[in-house]
Amino acid sequence: CAFLSPQQIQFTDQKQEFNKRPTKTGRRSLSRSISQSSTDSCSSVCSDSSEDESSPKDKLQKTSKGLSDFCIKNIKQADFGRREIEMAQQEMPALMVLRKRAGGEKPLAGAKVVGCTHITAQTAVLIETLCVLGAQCRWAACNIFSTQNAVAAALAEGGISVFAWRGESEEDFWWCIDQCVGAENWQPDMILDDGGDLTHWIYKKYPSLFKKMKGIVEESVTGVYRLYQLSKAGRLCVPAMNVNDSVTKQKFDNLYCCKESILDGLKRTTDVMFGGKQVVVCGYGEVGKGCCAALKALGAVVYVTEADPICALQACMDGFRVINLSEVVRQVDVVITCTGNKNVVGREHLDRMKNGCILCNMGHSNTEIDMVSLRTADLRWEHVRPQVDHVIWPDGKRIVLLAEGRLLNLSCSTVPSFVLSITAATQALALIELYNAPEGRYKQDVYLLPKKMDEYVASLHLSTFDAHLTELSDDQAKYLGISKHGPFKPNYYR
Amino acid sequence: CAFLSPQQIQFTDQKQEFNKRPTKTGRRSLSRSISQSSTDSCSSVCSDSSEDESSPKDKLQKTSKGLSDFCIKNIKQADFGRREIEMAQQEMPALMVLRKRAGGEKPLAGAKVVGCTHITAQTAVLIETLCVLGAQCRWAACNIFSTQNAVAAALAEGGISVFAWRGESEEDFWWCIDQCVGAENWQPDMILDDGGDLTHWIYKKYPSLFKKMKGIVEESVTGVYRLYQLSKAGRLCVPAMNVNDSVTKQKFDNLYCCKESILDGLKRTTDVMFGGKQVVVCGYGEVGKGCCAALKALGAVVYVTEADPICALQACMDGFRVINLSEVVRQVDVVITCTGNKNVVGREHLDRMKNGCILCNMGHSNTEIDMVSLRTADLRWEHVRPQVDHVIWPDGKRIVLLAEGRLLNLSCSTVPSFVLSITAATQALALIELYNAPEGRYKQDVYLLPKKMDEYVASLHLSTFDAHLTELSDDQAKYLGISKHGPFKPNYYR
Amino acid sequence: CAFLSPQQIQFTDQKQEFNKRPTKTGRRSLSRSISQSSTDSCSSVCSDSSEDESSPKDKLQKTSKGLSDFCIKNIKQADFGRREIEMAQQEMPALMVLRKRAGGEKPLAGAKVVGCTHITAQTAVLIETLCVLGAQCRWAACNIFSTQNAVAAALAEGGISVFAWRGESEEDFWWCIDQCVGAENWQPDMILDDGGDLTHWIYKKYPSLFKKMKGIVEESVTGVYRLYQLSKAGRLCVPAMNVNDSVTKQKFDNLYCCKESILDGLKRTTDVMFGGKQVVVCGYGEVGKGCCAALKALGAVVYVTEADPICALQACMDGFRVINLSEVVRQVDVVITCTGNKNVVGREHLDRMKNGCILCNMGHSNTEIDMVSLRTADLRWEHVRPQVDHVIWPDGKRIVLLAEGRLLNLSCSTVPSFVLSITAATQALALIELYNAPEGRYKQDVYLLPKKMDEYVASLHLSTFDAHLTELSDDQAKYLGISKHGPFKPNYYR
Amino acid sequence: CAFLSPQQIQFTDQKQEFNKRPTKTGRRSLSRSISQSSTDSCSSVCSDSSEDESSPKDKLQKTSKGLSDFCIKNIKQADFGRREIEMAQQEMPALMVLRKRAGGEKPLAGAKVVGCTHITAQTAVLIETLCVLGAQCRWAACNIFSTQNAVAAALAEGGISVFAWRGESEEDFWWCIDQCVGAENWQPDMILDDGGDLTHWIYKKYPSLFKKMKGIVEESVTGVYRLYQLSKAGRLCVPAMNVNDSVTKQKFDNLYCCKESILDGLKRTTDVMFGGKQVVVCGYGEVGKGCCAALKALGAVVYVTEADPICALQACMDGFRVINLSEVVRQVDVVITCTGNKNVVGREHLDRMKNGCILCNMGHSNTEIDMVSLRTADLRWEHVRPQVDHVIWPDGKRIVLLAEGRLLNLSCSTVPSFVLSITAATQALALIELYNAPEGRYKQDVYLLPKKMDEYVASLHLSTFDAHLTELSDDQAKYLGISKHGPFKPNYYR
Repeated sequence: CAFLSPQQIQFTDQKQEFNKRPTKTGRRSLSRSISQSSTDSCSSVCSDSSEDESSPKDKLQKTSKGLSDFCIKNIKQADFGRREIEMAQQEMPALMVLRKRAGGEKPLAGAKVVGCTHITAQTAVLIETLCVLGAQCRWAACNIFSTQNAVAAALAEGGISVFAWRGESEEDFWWCIDQCVGAENWQPDMILDDGGDLTHWIYKKYPSLFKKMKGIVEESVTGVYRLYQLSKAGRLCVPAMNVNDSVTKQKFDNLYCCKESILDGLKRTTDVMFGGKQVVVCGYGEVGKGCCAALKALGAVVYVTEADPICALQACMDGFRVINLSEVVRQVDVVITCTGNKNVVGREHLDRMKNGCILCNMGHSNTEIDMVSLRTADLRWEHVRPQVDHVIWPDGKRIVLLAEGRLLNLSCSTVPSFVLSITAATQALALIELYNAPEGRYKQDVYLLPKKMDEYVASLHLSTFDAHLTELSDDQAKYLGISKHGPFKPNYYR
Repeated sequence: CAFLSPQQIQFTDQKQEFNKRPTKTGRRSLSRSISQSSTDSCSSVCSDSSEDESSPKDKLQKTSKGLSDFCIKNIKQADFGRREIEMAQQEMPALMVLRKRAGGEKPLAGAKVVGCTHITAQTAVLIETLCVLGAQCRWAACNIFSTQNAVAAALAEGGISVFAWRGESEEDFWWCIDQCVGAENWQPDMILDDGGDLTHWIYKKYPSLFKKMKGIVEESVTGVYRLYQLSKAGRLCVPAMNVNDSVTKQKFDNLYCCKESILDGLKRTTDVMFGGKQVVVCGYGEVGKGCCAALKALGAVVYVTEADPICALQACMDGFRVINLSEVVRQVDVVITCTGNKNVVGREHLDRMKNGCILCNMGHSNTEIDMVSLRTADLRWEHVRPQVDHVIWPDGKRIVLLAEGRLLNLSCSTVPSFVLSITAATQALALIELYNAPEGRYKQDVYLLPKKMDEYVASLHLSTFDAHLTELSDDQAKYLGISKHGPFKPNYYR
Repeated sequence: CAFLSPQQIQFTDQKQEFNKRPTKTGRRSLSRSISQSSTDSCSSVCSDSSEDESSPKDKLQKTSKGLSDFCIKNIKQADFGRREIEMAQQEMPALMVLRKRAGGEKPLAGAKVVGCTHITAQTAVLIETLCVLGAQCRWAACNIFSTQNAVAAALAEGGISVFAWRGESEEDFWWCIDQCVGAENWQPDMILDDGGDLTHWIYKKYPSLFKKMKGIVEESVTGVYRLYQLSKAGRLCVPAMNVNDSVTKQKFDNLYCCKESILDGLKRTTDVMFGGKQVVVCGYGEVGKGCCAALKALGAVVYVTEADPICALQACMDGFRVINLSEVVRQVDVVITCTGNKNVVGREHLDRMKNGCILCNMGHSNTEIDMVSLRTADLRWEHVRPQVDHVIWPDGKRIVLLAEGRLLNLSCSTVPSFVLSITAATQALALIELYNAPEGRYKQDVYLLPKKMDEYVASLHLSTFDAHLTELSDDQAKYLGISKHGPFKPNYYR
Repeated sequence: CAFLSPQQIQFTDQKQEFNKRPTKTGRRSLSRSISQSSTDSCSSVCSDSSEDESSPKDKLQKTSKGLSDFCIKNIKQADFGRREIEMAQQEMPALMVLRKRAGGEKPLAGAKVVGCTHITAQTAVLIETLCVLGAQCRWAACNIFSTQNAVAAALAEGGISVFAWRGESEEDFWWCIDQCVGAENWQPDMILDDGGDLTHWIYKKYPSLFKKMKGIVEESVTGVYRLYQLSKAGRLCVPAMNVNDSVTKQKFDNLYCCKESILDGLKRTTDVMFGGKQVVVCGYGEVGKGCCAALKALGAVVYVTEADPICALQACMDGFRVINLSEVVRQVDVVITCTGNKNVVGREHLDRMKNGCILCNMGHSNTEIDMVSLRTADLRWEHVRPQVDHVIWPDGKRIVLLAEGRLLNLSCSTVPSFVLSITAATQALALIELYNAPEGRYKQDVYLLPKKMDEYVASLHLSTFDAHLTELSDDQAKYLGISKHGPFKPNYYR
């Protein structure tokens, strides 16, 4: 296995990273941005603003039990963080069930997991679940702004070696990752990564670690894209699990979640009334389907643009006029992009929008709206609220631009813990599978979670809805030609 | 006409006022609380926090033209306030049309209007419209917390005698009203009131003003209730227009607005995912119908409780199970009250709710949930976010209580300008009608706006939706037995 | 009391009668046409085609108990008719409850009711309920085509003096009515009428009967219109109950029923696929609201035309584009009228419709589409299916016209028993009220059913949905200022 | 290539054939049963009842041009049939576009196609399109009851050798097929089959024909199943196209079509009112999703049963309670099966249903309801309407059973031409592809239509909805890494 040279997969800062287009279908991982919103929403209660400004690296802190193998902002916040974690536990039933079911068995007994994710109440529930299942964990943050300091404190107080605080410098960022990987007497068996930076670091600095490693679990679009590149280039040294593309996760991140967050994001930023508004949704994939359904339900008149004739036909049958953007751009009140493509809304459209038109992106990265064309000398920008700018034409016309064209749902709405629970449970199962798989089951390749596990994750979440599955009889299973415990559908079922 | 003695209609502080139950059907005026949300939402841009703390009463301020007949926080904020007003104008098409249509005619030429409303960008559009139509105005705030200081500055700079600032003391409050009413050389023709305090003050201090007055326009439930009491007691001295009960306003304030604000209010406070949630909505009047429709559309499983068999049958036909609260209270994730009644959710229900159940009131005042029963020694309260409290049972069960049982949509969501536009246009038309009505058309009684005006207000808002009315032919009008310009429906049409 | 002279209210044949516009709001009674559809649907099982063609008037028939005071087609069909009645009973819970509750009491004990309605399984349940409640009944058909002969046989066999058969001549029609009214030793206390023909006959031939009569219950729009005319003219001799305008009946006949029957009527006649179809609905009253909701739900793109700005604004808020018919008539696939007006669709629109456009009327009578303009020499008609004609333009364009412009839901879809149950229960209660009311409660005027009875009818139907009403506590009722047993809402509540 | 021996794939009569379960996922082809419904609906106009009863085989008939190479009921009906075909053409835009686009090119020039499908107006449009594209066709019916005789006459009159009439005997059936295949001087290039009988006959009697054949196009579940069996057994002698499993066809046949036909089927048979009805839908695949969406939209309270946890979670998120059938079977008004499984509703459930419960199958074959358990001595059956039986328990309880447990939408509702258009266009394209494919592109295997063709079929149907596709720019296509003409989505996209 030839190790990747550093220049081949370069570290990219957050901005650039979001600009990269990872896969054809433009899928997105919501979980990447959870913490921002989560912390926003409790900011009034748990403000970090009054904290001292010394670097955590310069402070010696100890837990109540005397441990000090961690580096966080302030161990004294542990109690508050613990309560946040407890609240999140209530919304993450699957992980709690895994804890119970594991019982004496401990499917991760002896496993050493190094992780790099957002440090939030929800990921804390995941990390502590891994520990309950038998794993030893060392953890860093995958984003310099997203760490909930109180949660990090609670994790540390609970005995986990966590290295993360909000507002890390770039240098801090890599230092934290290095503390996790390069600890003495610590040879990680598995990587749990979100974005690929941890994986990248090990490729770059500790390639020999891969020799004894059981695998990588990666949840982000970006990270998965990197893994497929490695695989294609013949440089993937261990099996990798792509948890981003499981059915359950996809439907939740795209269809169900966007259905709710388009309303939430628009309301929080603009207080717009939906009833009677004319809206054009560019793209009728899963995200577009969710947006259209929600807006139609609340009384908006929705138009759709599509390039794919099958999706266009679905839009027709679902009751939406399918038009070219230029046909309606003069009359609509809101323009929403969710194509996964670039420059879907260009200056030629922007010039024709009516005064007060709201413009936002639910699709992918920040490419869908041609932002460059809005940064010209003739247009004036006015920042009117957080995440809301007015772009003003010479004649006084104002376009209301949300989140500067970045993803609305990541910037302006929150992600429910329940959605994160699905991702987290999938990650935990992927780790268990990799750790326990007989040798040879997984090669040095990127795998999708087996269908059956996808179904298992779904089943773990049914209790939230008090939903009761029907069990097939032996006869029925035989008639269908399947096992009575699944998998129940072909792989392509969506 | 016998004047009301002060002790008969007493001044009530805001808290008590909201506790009073005004009418049988529990209708509510949204506009009463606009400013809170409006100012919240732009607070990050236009913060008052850094302002000096001297009382406006102690400062001498002048407009750029040298005028000084006003009392506000800071005349220097006028530019910023002007922009807010301009933004609101875009969402208030009806008033702008009235300005245009008035043209040379000036239907309020010579009218002297004294007003007492929230001082916000939206009411500023109304006040300035009255001026364009020919009126002279003096204005005070109806709420000590709701004034947008920058807007007040812009009004003053524009030449209107406004007396209002955020954070008035109770003494200030009455002082401001008195400045409006008791000015020298000023004999108001009409009152525009929101809550009845201005009317009350004139009854109490300047009863002789009623002799030459053309009438009162009142929009709040509370104020209307007071007027009907006066009328009943034979003490109403001038005609009064109840603009609260027009069809258009009712549908907007109750059905359409609540349909949107229940989602908004729940999301902003709890980030709850709606899909699959079990929700019980108590009451299936207009508000309940709006809440149920929105929640069902977003994938919640909705139950309804009702006392009225006709509404219950409507709920059935609309696809909701109609049950007693006690039948489902153990299993539901969210409880929403909108009955207009009191103690709809009592301790016996609260004791049986499940851990994490969200509880809120969309109906009326703060009476629907028995708050007293939650203020007992055995229950612990934890304030977790603005407008969100956890009430904790001895066994650790937490109920998530929103806005302490007060109206969710007034506390935790915003009201679109478009809704306020309907109210404002109705108020303007009511003033025009009272001012121009031939003597004898209106007695000393409380009147509903004539159906035709209600239809006119509706028609003024159709351009927002680019909606085109069909005009009846002479033949068709004759066939229907109506005028081709309306009114088109019987008065009871809803 | 002056009796109406025959020439003032003339007998009109069915065709003309349906052409008359009864009330401003264009409300319709569905029940008028029930029997057609009901009998259609079981025609394959219970065909009358093989029956002998002798007139029932010429045959002497006797029941199994030897009774012969009736005149029907064939007493031998009684068993089959009885089963139809039993099936209908299951869907008419309210009447069955009334039977039970009456118990020993018999609120109609001694009452003599003469009736003239459709003779169908559903009305049979009503008639027999009146008997169980203590009344003696004589009954004729209100329509010469709608009698279910087997049901008439079962009624006769059960001892009721019924005079009706399918395919009566006009002469037979009046003969049957006369048999009911003019029987020896029979002085009716009350009239139950549907269409006003029975009432008319008594006015014309037996005016003296009114002297001792307690009142008239009338359910049809037409009949109610006649009663109001009589009242206006000072010629109404007894109290009359208008059961057509109760809230419950209105909502069921218009909103809920049309919501279902628009889909049913279009499918049965044209097999049209709704998904993606562009539809214009003329009129957004209750009927239009129902049609729009159903079509939108099934994936149609729906446009609305409206003359009333309030309804237009409701359409906007509900997510429909409000346009003039001429704006979309070229592009739509289906045109539906429900305005209650005449010539809403004229030749100028018809000329511009596209090939294959489907045209139907859900609103009122047969006036909404200008049928005269379609009966010109240049257009060719082709009858393609029952209730479906193609009107063919010289260039080959075909318009698909349903039910020749008459009401689609009366002609091409069925009315569920449950809807009829509401009407029937209301009629029964109206009779009970009139029979038991203390003298003086009702004058010689037309009355709406008291709100409380409307609520009672609704409550009797809740068991069908297993719906459980919430009972107000004494405290709550006091707080609301109402009785805890209702009425719960103001009269104008819809 | 070894030919299949007759005993390996036996001829099965229609009844048995429908009993066989073809594939795991239980997909169904709607087109198999079109003709029944289509002919039903125009039966009153074009009745065959008065036709003579001589066998077509015994009659010599000639077209107006003197041709006689066909065998049908009555050539005189050709005019009427032609009109039916013309009406169908309007709803089948894709085939008409293919005719136009072909123009001079004639992609099937010289092709000889032998076909065996239903003979209906819609298939006639297909057959004649193949001729316009250059093919010579001989055609037989795939079902002894489904032929529209007038349409067959029109085809014959148009010069096509068609052998089919309604009411063929089994012997006639094979005779007709044989006339198509075994004609002198006729060597078919391709087979278009629906059900596999034609293919079977050639395997059995004319195996040598396969030597020069370009392939088979098969649209039915059953036929496709047989082809896969042949392929598995190594006995498939030519390439075969499975047009049953294209995305477009699947979505239309299952999701969109069932969404409409569940309402239609229930209304036509039972006149049930949907509002407020409690319904349980067994299975939440595409068919179940369609049924649930439609019923919910019309006001039913819908419960879902599921065995697959992913589908169960989707049902939860879409707002349906997921329960075991036994939990709700006592209370529901309607039970609908769409699992693709057998004995989903067993006697233990049937015994507990309430009086009047409606029971029907939308899923697969006639296996989902345990019909055997209803054919016991203690239960009485009463046939009350076409396709409606009452099954009566000893205590008088009646279950309303529709279509004796066979597919409701095939028995009791119609299939819109538009849906058939999609199938027909797919069939035509599959023939063109097979006929023009360079040698070697297709082996002796079963193929799905290439994704791109699936998209092409979809695009041909967009004009019906006046839908306008957005074309990707070169830049955008490059960004997405796809061709700007598609395919646009991965193969598993649904």
